[in-house]
Amino acid sequence: MVVIMRPDAGRQDIDGVIERIRGCGMDVHVSQGKERTIIGIIGDEREIDFDSIAALPGVDRAMPILRPYKYVSRHVHPENRTIRVDGVTIGRGLVFMAGPCSVEDEDTTLRIAEQVQAAGAQIFRGGAYKPRTSPWSFQGLREKGLEILSRVKARTGMPICTEIMDTADIDVVGRHTDIYQVGMRNMRNYSLLAALGKTRKPVLLKRGDSAKLEEWLAAADYIIRNGNENIILCERGIRTFEDYTRNTLDLNAVVGAKIESSLPVVVDPSHGTGRADLVCAMGRAAVAAGADGLLLEVHFDPNRAWSDGMQTITPQAMGKLLDDCRRIQDLLGR
Amino acid sequence: MVVIMRPDAGRQDIDGVIERIRGCGMDVHVSQGKERTIIGIIGDEREIDFDSIAALPGVDRAMPILRPYKYVSRHVHPENRTIRVDGVTIGRGLVFMAGPCSVEDEDTTLRIAEQVQAAGAQIFRGGAYKPRTSPWSFQGLREKGLEILSRVKARTGMPICTEIMDTADIDVVGRHTDIYQVGMRNMRNYSLLAALGKTRKPVLLKRGDSAKLEEWLAAADYIIRNGNENIILCERGIRTFEDYTRNTLDLNAVVGAKIESSLPVVVDPSHGTGRADLVCAMGRAAVAAGADGLLLEVHFDPNRAWSDGMQTITPQAMGKLLDDCRRIQDLLGR
Amino acid sequence: MVVIMRPDAGRQDIDGVIERIRGCGMDVHVSQGKERTIIGIIGDEREIDFDSIAALPGVDRAMPILRPYKYVSRHVHPENRTIRVDGVTIGRGLVFMAGPCSVEDEDTTLRIAEQVQAAGAQIFRGGAYKPRTSPWSFQGLREKGLEILSRVKARTGMPICTEIMDTADIDVVGRHTDIYQVGMRNMRNYSLLAALGKTRKPVLLKRGDSAKLEEWLAAADYIIRNGNENIILCERGIRTFEDYTRNTLDLNAVVGAKIESSLPVVVDPSHGTGRADLVCAMGRAAVAAGADGLLLEVHFDPNRAWSDGMQTITPQAMGKLLDDCRRIQDLLGR
Amino acid sequence: MVVIMRPDAGRQDIDGVIERIRGCGMDVHVSQGKERTIIGIIGDEREIDFDSIAALPGVDRAMPILRPYKYVSRHVHPENRTIRVDGVTIGRGLVFMAGPCSVEDEDTTLRIAEQVQAAGAQIFRGGAYKPRTSPWSFQGLREKGLEILSRVKARTGMPICTEIMDTADIDVVGRHTDIYQVGMRNMRNYSLLAALGKTRKPVLLKRGDSAKLEEWLAAADYIIRNGNENIILCERGIRTFEDYTRNTLDLNAVVGAKIESSLPVVVDPSHGTGRADLVCAMGRAAVAAGADGLLLEVHFDPNRAWSDGMQTITPQAMGKLLDDCRRIQDLLGR
Repeated sequence: MVVIMRPDAGRQDIDGVIERIRGCGMDVHVSQGKERTIIGIIGDEREIDFDSIAALPGVDRAMPILRPYKYVSRHVHPENRTIRVDGVTIGRGLVFMAGPCSVEDEDTTLRIAEQVQAAGAQIFRGGAYKPRTSPWSFQGLREKGLEILSRVKARTGMPICTEIMDTADIDVVGRHTDIYQVGMRNMRNYSLLAALGKTRKPVLLKRGDSAKLEEWLAAADYIIRNGNENIILCERGIRTFEDYTRNTLDLNAVVGAKIESSLPVVVDPSHGTGRADLVCAMGRAAVAAGADGLLLEVHFDPNRAWSDGMQTITPQAMGKLLDDCRRIQDLLGR
Repeated sequence: MVVIMRPDAGRQDIDGVIERIRGCGMDVHVSQGKERTIIGIIGDEREIDFDSIAALPGVDRAMPILRPYKYVSRHVHPENRTIRVDGVTIGRGLVFMAGPCSVEDEDTTLRIAEQVQAAGAQIFRGGAYKPRTSPWSFQGLREKGLEILSRVKARTGMPICTEIMDTADIDVVGRHTDIYQVGMRNMRNYSLLAALGKTRKPVLLKRGDSAKLEEWLAAADYIIRNGNENIILCERGIRTFEDYTRNTLDLNAVVGAKIESSLPVVVDPSHGTGRADLVCAMGRAAVAAGADGLLLEVHFDPNRAWSDGMQTITPQAMGKLLDDCRRIQDLLGR
Repeated sequence: MVVIMRPDAGRQDIDGVIERIRGCGMDVHVSQGKERTIIGIIGDEREIDFDSIAALPGVDRAMPILRPYKYVSRHVHPENRTIRVDGVTIGRGLVFMAGPCSVEDEDTTLRIAEQVQAAGAQIFRGGAYKPRTSPWSFQGLREKGLEILSRVKARTGMPICTEIMDTADIDVVGRHTDIYQVGMRNMRNYSLLAALGKTRKPVLLKRGDSAKLEEWLAAADYIIRNGNENIILCERGIRTFEDYTRNTLDLNAVVGAKIESSLPVVVDPSHGTGRADLVCAMGRAAVAAGADGLLLEVHFDPNRAWSDGMQTITPQAMGKLLDDCRRIQDLLGR
Repeated sequence: MVVIMRPDAGRQDIDGVIERIRGCGMDVHVSQGKERTIIGIIGDEREIDFDSIAALPGVDRAMPILRPYKYVSRHVHPENRTIRVDGVTIGRGLVFMAGPCSVEDEDTTLRIAEQVQAAGAQIFRGGAYKPRTSPWSFQGLREKGLEILSRVKARTGMPICTEIMDTADIDVVGRHTDIYQVGMRNMRNYSLLAALGKTRKPVLLKRGDSAKLEEWLAAADYIIRNGNENIILCERGIRTFEDYTRNTLDLNAVVGAKIESSLPVVVDPSHGTGRADLVCAMGRAAVAAGADGLLLEVHFDPNRAWSDGMQTITPQAMGKLLDDCRRIQDLLGR
């Protein structure tokens, strides 16, 4: 932490800050500037309370230097991490997860699964528990949806990725999924993250729509710190003033996440755009930026999808997209 | 819902939309404009899927007309709602909830409680479970903190408001609190909201830092729909590009929440500014805008607070603020 | 500036930074932390290029310490500044500027002027040059509108405040206005700011809808630096994700602007909300927060206003609002 | 426009709206819904004032249907537009514009120019007039910089793209540049846009950092409407809450701009990221998303650049990036 004193701070203010920092068992460096005094902390600032320093008399600002995370950092784990799920490797080459937004009736779901598999998907995704803004919207098939997912796996062999919304559901969802998906609304549900950290199943952690990169990585640290290192980051767009698209897909954050951490990063261009006519272009862009894969909403009849039809593409469009992505990946020598 | 067709939409696109809407049991009105055809839906659009209409061929945009909530709406419940908690009425006159950000050791906490009560607080607030961005920061005293809160109530008689982070903790927290606080990170944790809807204890629902007004009200609808009408809305700032303050306190939303719903609305200027030197001015502004009360972080020694010291005011400053607020309220004849 | 080196920065990286800073004629303080080295600059960092330091090998981040402005700072000018315009003092007591969004025909404009004056306005505002998002919208009466403004002044004696959009119009607008208004779209039009700095007429500088507080103050510094100290800051809302209101009125920034600078600060709740049903509540809130006055869109028939009718209030509503504001001001002893 | 009446609107409110619309020479369609009445306007809504309708009694919301622009629309001009500048075609194949952020001394600038040309740049960019947040920062070499640009062109043959900040400078800048660049701070400087519309020189129009896609296109319409169709759109990042990067590069908007309009769209990953370590990945992503080219800050010694060194890449890095981009373009069959 760097503590910047106000221009009018006196000797005793400065001494107060130094004393407080030393009281926490750390040491200081003091720089007497022309206009201001600056005090640097020597030690792991994550262990002292930022705010209590910032509130001391004579302090203008206190600026953190260390990031709010440790374990996910590339400094700690320099090589790219890979995760194996039922024979699929995430974090080396490209991985494609596809399926409908919501699990629908068994026949429809199986038909979609077969088509996305034929189009190149390695993992099947679909929501049984659906977090919806309005309590009046369809909330998912819940347990019945989970059973349909298990039948998809039995039929196709594809591992399953589905959303978990509550610590109370970890067991029941865990019986039917291979990857727990944490949706953007729960990225800061730290109780859920800690509980998932105690399982060993991979977690696909979507970025919150108002989460800074460092907060997203800190959320991943909640999982690792509890023992589970199998984390896949998923960028799915942030909320901005722009309303042409449902969200603003932030590919900068994909590149940043791969610089700052060694976790695999996939991109969800379906939610990241909210428009089927943008999904393929942004999927290609994500791979060109360095994403390790895509999460896609696909349905053979998007107009009949039970939710999110507006951002759903067909298996045919998906096949073409995957082909483009694989060729871009080859071309870039990755 | 209003469906706006593309300029190049053909007769069969238009018929497709009409057929789909009628298939959902609703009727339509068709307006043939100069450039475009517009189709209006007659019926409760919340019961059909917005996206599946928007994804139909020839559709440019589909715009919702109804809000995503019902029960919290002032149309449904025109008079202001009031909530009684242990003799304190929320929603008529001003209510002040104050205390430290985190519950600290028993002596400190009791001392703060006595001082905020003397300064005019009617309800004591303090966090035992602390959602923190970094897993490396102090996470609260948890059960031990809850017990200290019960001792505060036994000593002072003030009802307690403390945060709940997990459905699994509803019982244990419920034994020690009079109001469940849902923090901004959990505003979209719909499992938690639904579970709190099944209790009868008041819920203080903080606005998510990226939640639109209508999403905040829809979150309240999750609670009411499950049976609990005792909801207090709390504006605590949204996330914007501005970094001078920790959040941007959105008083527009306070006025809007009182227009659109009949729930009481309180304001948290501590988190809404993140700076002790702004708290009092913004607390006065909140009351002038029509807030029903304030939620304040107060400590006799802000520099020694275990968290959020930078935005914590003293009991003395609080006393002066409450006095100003009461006089503004009188002056406005409320 | 504080330069934070990467954990893996070597001796030669550190020496490179030190050498560069010394080459700019400044001195350094080096703090050898546990994980990282931190280098502080001694001298006025505004004179060296921030980016060129941040780009040096081994640098993780460079953080500015000084604000991007000087002259507007309260450190430089501790007492509140006041501005006199034709007998009206801005910056002591409350000032109210009111009128229609656009100058309309002479009769209507005069009638509005008389009514807002009767309701308590001291300064008349109205746009002759209208910056509009679409080139297809009404762009203002331009020169003809300016002449009507002069007739308003001749009739009522009220000083005039109207918008200037182009350096080429400084003379013509200056012949008819007492205060140049710089709209939010031109807050970063530095050519215009510099040119207004060469006049002596007061400038009402609206905050850009994506401008941080410090950028707004730096824009004011462009004017002062060119010789004109008569600046009135005007908060009019920022752009966020919230679409219930046209903008998010940021009263935090009003308090902040008065802490950081000594310029008078007025608030425009008409644009800051975009809704007539919010204007009065937010006007009162602005005064309670410490604003020096309000800028209001007022029309005797808001539904007939040529622009912005949705956010326009009547002279009657305005009269009541001003009364409330004056009583709040008295109560707060200002 | 679609006008949505409040649930409690009476017959006379509805008639009032209808009468007003008919008074503007347009016709209406009325849909009597279950909860509300909806009134659609038949005719070109851009010619009547949106706000004045929205402010009528009984109106809940008025929603525009038409976009705020016409001429840039792909409906009006279906085929992609191309622009020729001195033998370089923009809008067919990829175009690369590169150079330093600021024009520096003649030797340095010429050396950069030769290197970026060797690396594949077809157009030279560099700022002589620099809009800077702080008046205390370097403001560019101005006229002297323009002359250096002319010498670059004389030496290399590359056309020049440089920023114009003021209508008063159109002639002087025009004597030295082949493309006028409008920076993001001036995207809503409509006087400048209108004036550039009266020239015939191509204009590179950067998106404002708080401009929605439709506002950016409407800004282009200001130029076309005044007679100049030679517009190149440039996405350069928007302002969001994320501070890991300087801006959030919004590639969604690139795809959207190409769907909605037929203008060429280039991307500036230098400003769009603010970090040299992200520029190449995002440049590739931009091309994969469909951009028509890139605008790049390049310097043989980024640490010595006079401004923006942090986001500047070397000619070597640029050469590799261009090679990747061209191969992606080929692969996608464009």
